[in-house]
Amino acid sequence: MPLVRISHTAGKPPTFAAALSAGVHRALMEAFNVPADDFFQIVTEHAHTTGVVGPKTFLGIDHSVDIVVVQITCAEGRSTQQKKALYSRIAELLSADAGVRREDVIVSLVETKRENWSFGNGIAQFAPAESTG
Amino acid sequence: MPLVRISHTAGKPPTFAAALSAGVHRALMEAFNVPADDFFQIVTEHAHTTGVVGPKTFLGIDHSVDIVVVQITCAEGRSTQQKKALYSRIAELLSADAGVRREDVIVSLVETKRENWSFGNGIAQFAPAESTG
Amino acid sequence: MPLVRISHTAGKPPTFAAALSAGVHRALMEAFNVPADDFFQIVTEHAHTTGVVGPKTFLGIDHSVDIVVVQITCAEGRSTQQKKALYSRIAELLSADAGVRREDVIVSLVETKRENWSFGNGIAQFAPAESTG
Repeated sequence: MPLVRISHTAGKPPTFAAALSAGVHRALMEAFNVPADDFFQIVTEHAHTTGVVGPKTFLGIDHSVDIVVVQITCAEGRSTQQKKALYSRIAELLSADAGVRREDVIVSLVETKRENWSFGNGIAQFAPAESTG
Repeated sequence: MPLVRISHTAGKPPTFAAALSAGVHRALMEAFNVPADDFFQIVTEHAHTTGVVGPKTFLGIDHSVDIVVVQITCAEGRSTQQKKALYSRIAELLSADAGVRREDVIVSLVETKRENWSFGNGIAQFAPAESTG
Repeated sequence: MPLVRISHTAGKPPTFAAALSAGVHRALMEAFNVPADDFFQIVTEHAHTTGVVGPKTFLGIDHSVDIVVVQITCAEGRSTQQKKALYSRIAELLSADAGVRREDVIVSLVETKRENWSFGNGIAQFAPAESTG
């Protein structure tokens, strides 16, 4: 049940956004065991520097003006190891498939309760069973 | 104190965004007892498929390319029953008032502490009283 | 490790967005001890009323149609006093440097674990040491 927000800079080839989408989703499938059809994202394009803002360097990592910011709201409960695997795989796939520098891949996770989601029809599909009725 | 982000696809009639806004807000008033004037939203339009990304089917629910994603940051403390009532009411109202298929209404809640908000003038209007001073 | 989303209305001078960016970041440095180069933001412009939605009045505070919404995802652990200092400083700086009415500055904080971030190269730079390996 992730909801993914991907923010990238303008001036990219037409296939760029789709490559970002697919790469982040594949990483979620592999590292977080997200089902293939649990695929909800908002992808937005922004101006360099004034729309997507990043530092030239942080923590010794050099950033270009083309950072990609991936914010993922998901269910709580993944281990730190799973999170590390996710970050690593997102950076790998966005580099390989979309040509993003690995240094430019920024990821932020926001964890919520399983009852905090509805995937259509106004139903809380993942609410705990004891809360039903 | 919700902050609502509504993401919808392009090509809708001029009244569409306002109907989404009003529907989500009315559902929050009814299910979460949000005051009428506690009405803060960011509503954005995106390209089909590459901007708002969704699966054809998830959990047995068929989605069109016109899903509407509603992410609500709000104070923690609502019960699962209230959350279920919220999802149900949002789907009902977006269907009735904006013509959105009930299957296409996706909702994500992010809960935060009451002290995590300022609604103007630089003041934490909902911080616990014992923290004042 | 904040990720800041700033949403403002259209029709502003060219320097407006940069003044918002700088003001929020300076407030984070002063109130939350954020390093100068920990500067990641998404700044977006929206239509009045239908894009950025706000009430005329809430909690006795009058809003114009030019509210600025600042949502900050950051590491958990700041005190209520630090949060109050942040709200106050953001309102001061956006007023002084960008001409935003103090009444129109809305702030929402979302707190996450330190392991929930990657700032490049696919590494969880702030994960607790005991989780490494």
